[in-house]
Amino acid sequence: MTGNIFGERFVLVSFGESHGRCVGAVIDGCPAGLMLSEKDIQRELDRRKPGQSGITTTRSEADEVEILSGLFEGYTTGAPICMVVWNKDVDSTKYETVKYEPRPGHADYTAFVRYGGFNDPRGGGRLSGRTTISYLMGGAVAKKLLRETLNVEILAHTTEIGGVKAEKRSLDEIRQADNNPVRCADPEAAKQMIARINEAQKQKDSVGGAVQCIALNVPAGLGDPVFNTLEGDISKALYSIPAVKSVEFGSGVDSARMTGSQHNDHFALREGKIITLSNYAGGILGGISNGMPITCRVTIKPTPSIRKKQQTVNLLSMKETIIEVEGRHDPCIVPRAVPVVEAMVAMVILDHAISAHLIPRVLEKKM
Amino acid sequence: MTGNIFGERFVLVSFGESHGRCVGAVIDGCPAGLMLSEKDIQRELDRRKPGQSGITTTRSEADEVEILSGLFEGYTTGAPICMVVWNKDVDSTKYETVKYEPRPGHADYTAFVRYGGFNDPRGGGRLSGRTTISYLMGGAVAKKLLRETLNVEILAHTTEIGGVKAEKRSLDEIRQADNNPVRCADPEAAKQMIARINEAQKQKDSVGGAVQCIALNVPAGLGDPVFNTLEGDISKALYSIPAVKSVEFGSGVDSARMTGSQHNDHFALREGKIITLSNYAGGILGGISNGMPITCRVTIKPTPSIRKKQQTVNLLSMKETIIEVEGRHDPCIVPRAVPVVEAMVAMVILDHAISAHLIPRVLEKKM
Amino acid sequence: MTGNIFGERFVLVSFGESHGRCVGAVIDGCPAGLMLSEKDIQRELDRRKPGQSGITTTRSEADEVEILSGLFEGYTTGAPICMVVWNKDVDSTKYETVKYEPRPGHADYTAFVRYGGFNDPRGGGRLSGRTTISYLMGGAVAKKLLRETLNVEILAHTTEIGGVKAEKRSLDEIRQADNNPVRCADPEAAKQMIARINEAQKQKDSVGGAVQCIALNVPAGLGDPVFNTLEGDISKALYSIPAVKSVEFGSGVDSARMTGSQHNDHFALREGKIITLSNYAGGILGGISNGMPITCRVTIKPTPSIRKKQQTVNLLSMKETIIEVEGRHDPCIVPRAVPVVEAMVAMVILDHAISAHLIPRVLEKKM
Amino acid sequence: MTGNIFGERFVLVSFGESHGRCVGAVIDGCPAGLMLSEKDIQRELDRRKPGQSGITTTRSEADEVEILSGLFEGYTTGAPICMVVWNKDVDSTKYETVKYEPRPGHADYTAFVRYGGFNDPRGGGRLSGRTTISYLMGGAVAKKLLRETLNVEILAHTTEIGGVKAEKRSLDEIRQADNNPVRCADPEAAKQMIARINEAQKQKDSVGGAVQCIALNVPAGLGDPVFNTLEGDISKALYSIPAVKSVEFGSGVDSARMTGSQHNDHFALREGKIITLSNYAGGILGGISNGMPITCRVTIKPTPSIRKKQQTVNLLSMKETIIEVEGRHDPCIVPRAVPVVEAMVAMVILDHAISAHLIPRVLEKKM
Repeated sequence: MTGNIFGERFVLVSFGESHGRCVGAVIDGCPAGLMLSEKDIQRELDRRKPGQSGITTTRSEADEVEILSGLFEGYTTGAPICMVVWNKDVDSTKYETVKYEPRPGHADYTAFVRYGGFNDPRGGGRLSGRTTISYLMGGAVAKKLLRETLNVEILAHTTEIGGVKAEKRSLDEIRQADNNPVRCADPEAAKQMIARINEAQKQKDSVGGAVQCIALNVPAGLGDPVFNTLEGDISKALYSIPAVKSVEFGSGVDSARMTGSQHNDHFALREGKIITLSNYAGGILGGISNGMPITCRVTIKPTPSIRKKQQTVNLLSMKETIIEVEGRHDPCIVPRAVPVVEAMVAMVILDHAISAHLIPRVLEKKM
Repeated sequence: MTGNIFGERFVLVSFGESHGRCVGAVIDGCPAGLMLSEKDIQRELDRRKPGQSGITTTRSEADEVEILSGLFEGYTTGAPICMVVWNKDVDSTKYETVKYEPRPGHADYTAFVRYGGFNDPRGGGRLSGRTTISYLMGGAVAKKLLRETLNVEILAHTTEIGGVKAEKRSLDEIRQADNNPVRCADPEAAKQMIARINEAQKQKDSVGGAVQCIALNVPAGLGDPVFNTLEGDISKALYSIPAVKSVEFGSGVDSARMTGSQHNDHFALREGKIITLSNYAGGILGGISNGMPITCRVTIKPTPSIRKKQQTVNLLSMKETIIEVEGRHDPCIVPRAVPVVEAMVAMVILDHAISAHLIPRVLEKKM
Repeated sequence: MTGNIFGERFVLVSFGESHGRCVGAVIDGCPAGLMLSEKDIQRELDRRKPGQSGITTTRSEADEVEILSGLFEGYTTGAPICMVVWNKDVDSTKYETVKYEPRPGHADYTAFVRYGGFNDPRGGGRLSGRTTISYLMGGAVAKKLLRETLNVEILAHTTEIGGVKAEKRSLDEIRQADNNPVRCADPEAAKQMIARINEAQKQKDSVGGAVQCIALNVPAGLGDPVFNTLEGDISKALYSIPAVKSVEFGSGVDSARMTGSQHNDHFALREGKIITLSNYAGGILGGISNGMPITCRVTIKPTPSIRKKQQTVNLLSMKETIIEVEGRHDPCIVPRAVPVVEAMVAMVILDHAISAHLIPRVLEKKM
Repeated sequence: MTGNIFGERFVLVSFGESHGRCVGAVIDGCPAGLMLSEKDIQRELDRRKPGQSGITTTRSEADEVEILSGLFEGYTTGAPICMVVWNKDVDSTKYETVKYEPRPGHADYTAFVRYGGFNDPRGGGRLSGRTTISYLMGGAVAKKLLRETLNVEILAHTTEIGGVKAEKRSLDEIRQADNNPVRCADPEAAKQMIARINEAQKQKDSVGGAVQCIALNVPAGLGDPVFNTLEGDISKALYSIPAVKSVEFGSGVDSARMTGSQHNDHFALREGKIITLSNYAGGILGGISNGMPITCRVTIKPTPSIRKKQQTVNLLSMKETIIEVEGRHDPCIVPRAVPVVEAMVAMVILDHAISAHLIPRVLEKKM
C-alpha cells in the first residue's frame, strides 16, 4: 500500500501540504451509527494548533475542521468520512532557498531525492508537522469509538524536555497534564521545562524530549503475532510522527540491565480478574495485549529548525554553503506532539479491536 | 493481512511450531534469476541454531533446511519458495502444565486468551523463539539479493548484555563479532558478558541486552512517508522478534537530551557525493533514507524462562499458584537474536528497494 | 483493506455521496513530475456528466473538479492528490420513502442491512452511480500517465443496447464513438439504440447493454499469477461499476462452444516482434499480458429505477407494499458507463505497470 | 501483495510446481478450534485428482495431503496451517522444447517474458492446473468453516461442455452432479458431453464449457462497496483458475437484452423473512449479498494442449516454427474445475463473513 494510507480495518488517508490549500483526511472503515460532529474533531485539533502559548510558532491558524462526507443526520453512515482544514496564514516567502539548500536535520534533502525535486518545499510541504492534523482527525474518531464501545482511555503526557525529567505521577495527575503548556503531569518539572525551552529559543537553538502514552482498559487478546504484533503496529504508527527517534514499551531500554527475576511480571487475581503485579511488559506479551495498561514512550529529537548558521550543500551548484534557517518554528515540538501520539496509539488499538470483533460494524441498529 | 505474513513486495510467510513437525517459510515476490541453494540459507540458520556454545540451550537441533519449491536449475524462478526445517529433538514432557499455569513474562497467557486455549503450548508452540528460523530463511535470501544488486551490507552485533556495555568499535571489528559466542565486537566486553551470563545461569536467572544493526550502502530515497517510513517499517519488523522492548534509530533515546545544534547532521560533499558530517539521524530523515549508514538498536529483555519460583494463576481452577519453569532455555537470548535482527532489517530494506525499482524483477535474462 | 480504497501502488480513495456536499477522490502513489491540471480531469468528467443529451437524467450538474492537494507549479509532487466535485443540483424530496421501502434492483435493501439503517438514502447515497465521478478522477490521471510513459491507449465503446448489437468496427471508428450520444462505433446501430432507449422511457421502463474495452500497446509481461492475474484485477475493478453483471475477456462466453484448435492463438513474427494471429485470449495468457490488445466486455443491466409499479417490503412495518420510483433517472446507463469502464481498466494496467517497474517514480528529474 | 497470496482475513498462500517436489499451501487466519484432519482436505483433492475417469489425463497421482503445521490434538490452533501433496508421477521428458517453443493458448510465452526465462517449464511449472490443488486445500477448510458456523453450502456443477447445454435442474439434482464423470446435474446432457469429449480427443482436439456455482444460506450484508464488492472479489478469485474466460452473476450476459421491469427482483416476505421473487441479481445488490442464493457462472476455454500441428515462434532463433504438443492432457478440463470453482467462491464468502464478524476468532473456548 502507498505511503499516505494507514491501517487495515479503520483506515486513515492523509492529504494536504503545509502551505497548500488544506490539510485533510479520509477515514474509511468507520462503523455506522457513531454520533459525530466537527466538535469531536475540533477538540483534538485545538490541542495541537499553533499559538496556544508563548512557546509555540507564531503562525496563526484557527485550524477549523469541516466534514465533507460520511455523515447523515448526525451519525456516521459507514461511508468514508472526508475532513479538511483550510490553510489560512501561509507565508511562503521564507522557503525559496530551502529547496536547493536543504536544512540539516530536515527532510528537505531526502524529499528532493525521493520526489526528484518536484516536492512542494514550502514550509516542509507534505513532510511538515502540519500534516499531523490529519492524524488527529483519525485519532479523534478512533478515541471516541474506543471510549464508547470498550471504555478504552488513551492518555499521553510529556515526561522529559531538554534534560528535565518529570517525576512519576498518578493517573489523575496525568489526566490534568494539558493544564500547562508543556503537557507535563509534574507541575514543578513543567516550570523548568518551560524555562529550558525559553532559554533554548534565546540561544537560537531547540530542545527535544519524551512523551509517554498509556492505554487503559484495553482488553486482553489484541494482536496478531508473529508479525502483526501490537508493539509492532503501534511502533510503526508512532514513527510516522516527525522527529520520533525511539519507541519503547514497558521497561523499554532499561530491560537490557534487568534480570529475568526482576523483569517477569507475576500473575495474580484481583476481583476474579487476572492481572500482573508489575507491568514491565507494558501490557503486551508475545505481541498480544494482556489486559494491563499498555505503556509506551517515544523520544522526540530537538526541532531541526534553528536560527544558527549551519553547513549544507547547494543541490544545483553542488557546492558546500552556510545557511540560516528562517520561518516560524517551535523551539520544542514535544508538547504539540502529545495529542498526536494519542491519536496514533488509538487508531492501532481500534484496528486490532475491530479485527477481534470487539467493535460492531453498526453501533446500534437505527430504524 | 493476517499475522504470519510479512512484507508487501518481498513477502515472508512463516509457519510451524517449536514442537510440531517443522518450522518453515514461503517467500513470495523473490525476483527470478537469483542463484540460490540450501547453503545460502544454512549459513544463517547455523548462526542461530542451539548448541553453538556453552551459553545456549541444550536442545540439539541440526536445523537443516530443505527447499521444496521455487528453484529450477539452481536459480529462483519467480515462483514462491517454500523451505522447511524438520524438528528433531522434541521433548514436550516439560510443557504439560504450562498451558493452564502461564509462565510470567511469556506469551502463554495471552496466547491462551487470543486462541481460546487451542494454541499448541509445547515449547511455546507458535510463539516460541524457534519460529524465528523462518525469519532467517527470508533474511538469507534478502541479504543475498541486496548484496548482489546494490552491494548493501547488513551488520548486527551485541552492544550490551547484563549491564556490560561494549566500547564503540570499527566496522571491521563489527564484521568479526561472530568470532565470540556473544557476538560482541569488543572482545574485552565479550568476556565479561559471558561471565555475566554464566553467573545468571548459576542463580537460576537470566539477563537481557542490546543489539545494534548497521546497514551500509543503502541508496538515498527509500521510504514512503508519511506512514510507511523506513523507521516505521524496520521498527515493526524488529518488534516481531520475541523479547524486543525498544527500537531506536541514530541518537535514539539520547536525542531527548540534545539541542538542535548538537543533533542536526550538517551536509557536506565528499568525492562529489552528499554526506552528513555526523549521523545522529541514523541514516533516515523524514522517513526516507539519506544515503548514510542506517543505524538502529533494539533492547532485548532477559529471557523469561527462569528456574526460580514464580507466582502465576491456574487458568482452570482460577487460583493463584507457584510454579518453577522447567525445559531447556538460554540464560541470555541476545547472541542468537543477532542474525534475526539482520534478517528483519534486510527484508524491510529490500521491500523498499523493490518499491523504488532498484531491484529488477528478473536479475538477468536467461536464454 | 476497506471498501473505498482501490489499487496497491496507484491507489484511488473514493468518498462522497450523491446528495451530500461533494463527491471526491484521493489518489496516492502517483509518480512525481506529471504535468497535471483540472483540465485533464474535467475532460473525463464531461463525458459522464448528466444532461449531455436527451437520453440522460435531467439532474443538472456542471461537475466541475477542483484539485486540493498534490500539485506544485503545475506538476504532481508525489504527494496524495485530493480532488472534489461539489454537488449543486440536489433535490432529495423524492427519497424520503426509499429508505424503508427499498426499490427492487437497487442497493437500498442491502445497504440498509449492511449499515444498519444509518446509510444516507438520498439519491442512493454512497451507492449512487454518481460516486463513479471519483473513478474518473483516478482514471484520468492513470490514462495520462500510461499514455505519456508507455503510449498505452484505452478505448471503450458501446456494443449493445436493448437488444441492438453494433457491427464490429475498426479502431478508428471506435475512437470516434463519442460522437453519438450512445457512444457506439456503428452509427446505424447507434440510431436504433437511441430509438430503443426512447421507447423504453416512454414505457416507464429501462434497457441494458454491453461495453467493450480495448487497451492498446500494453507491454507483454504484466500480471502476477496465480492470484493477481491481469484478468482478475481488471474484473474486480469493473465489478465496482454499479449494474455490471458479467466480465469477459477475449472470446468470453463464446469460448465454451469452441474447440482448442479454433481457440488457440498461433504465434507469429511481425517486424521482429512476437504477435498472435488471432486474439481469442484477449491479450492475456496465464494471467499475464502477451503484448496483444487487451479486450474485455462488460454487460450492464437495465437501470433499476423505473416508474412502473413494483412490489417491495416496508422495513419498518415489515409488510409487503407497492411503490412507484420517482426521481430523475437514465433509462439506459450504458453510454455514461463507457468512460468509467476506461477509467477502471486504466488504473489496473497502471498498477501492474508500476509493479513491473515500467513507470518511473519520478517522470523526469527537475532541477 | 504478491501474486501467490489470496485473501485478507482468511489467507491462502500457494506454492509448488507441476513437476517439482510438491504442491502446497499455507492457510493463515483460520480461526482456532476447528476440528480438522487430512480427511477433510483429501475429500476435495480426490474430486480433482487425475485418473478419476476415462476422460482425464493419464498422469497417475494419488494426491495425498499431509498437514505439517497449525493443528494440535485434532483442532486448528489459530496458527498457520501448512499442507503439501508430494508429486510422484513426474515425467518431464516431453517438456524440453516447450520452454523456447511456446505452445499456443498456454502461458509458456507470457511466463517466459514475465520471469525472464527462469520459470520452470516442466508441465507448465508454476502455471500448471496442478497448482489448483492448493486452492482446494484452502477451499476445503473454508467450506467446512462456513458449513459449521453459518450452514452455508457451496455447490458447483457443469452446465455446458462442447456446445452441449444442461437443462436447468433442482438443487437436489445439482447435489448429485458428482455422480457422473462430467459433474453435470442433467444425466442426459452428461452422456452427450462425454461423447463430445471423446470425439474431440479422437480428433486430437479439446473442448470448453461452463460451470455454475450456487452459494446457499449466505447471510445478507456481506460485501464492502464501492470497490470490495462481493461480485468483484468472487470474480477476481475465479479468474485465478486457469482457462476461465468469463464470470457472470445472476442474469449475466443475458441482462443486456432485458428491460428493467423484467430484471428487477421484487421484494416479498416469506415466513417473516425478506426474499426476492426472482433472482436475476444472483443474490447480490450494490456489491452486497441480499440473502438469496448467490449464483455465478464461469466459462472455461478448451484445453490449449492439443496434439494437432500448430504454429509458434522459437524464442532462441526467433523464427516461426510448427510444433506438436505432447504430454498427458485432459481433452476437457471443465469437470475437474468444478471443485476448484467451489473452493474459490468459498474462500471469498468466508473472508467477507469474517469481516462481518460472523465467524468467531475461536470457534468455542477449550478448557
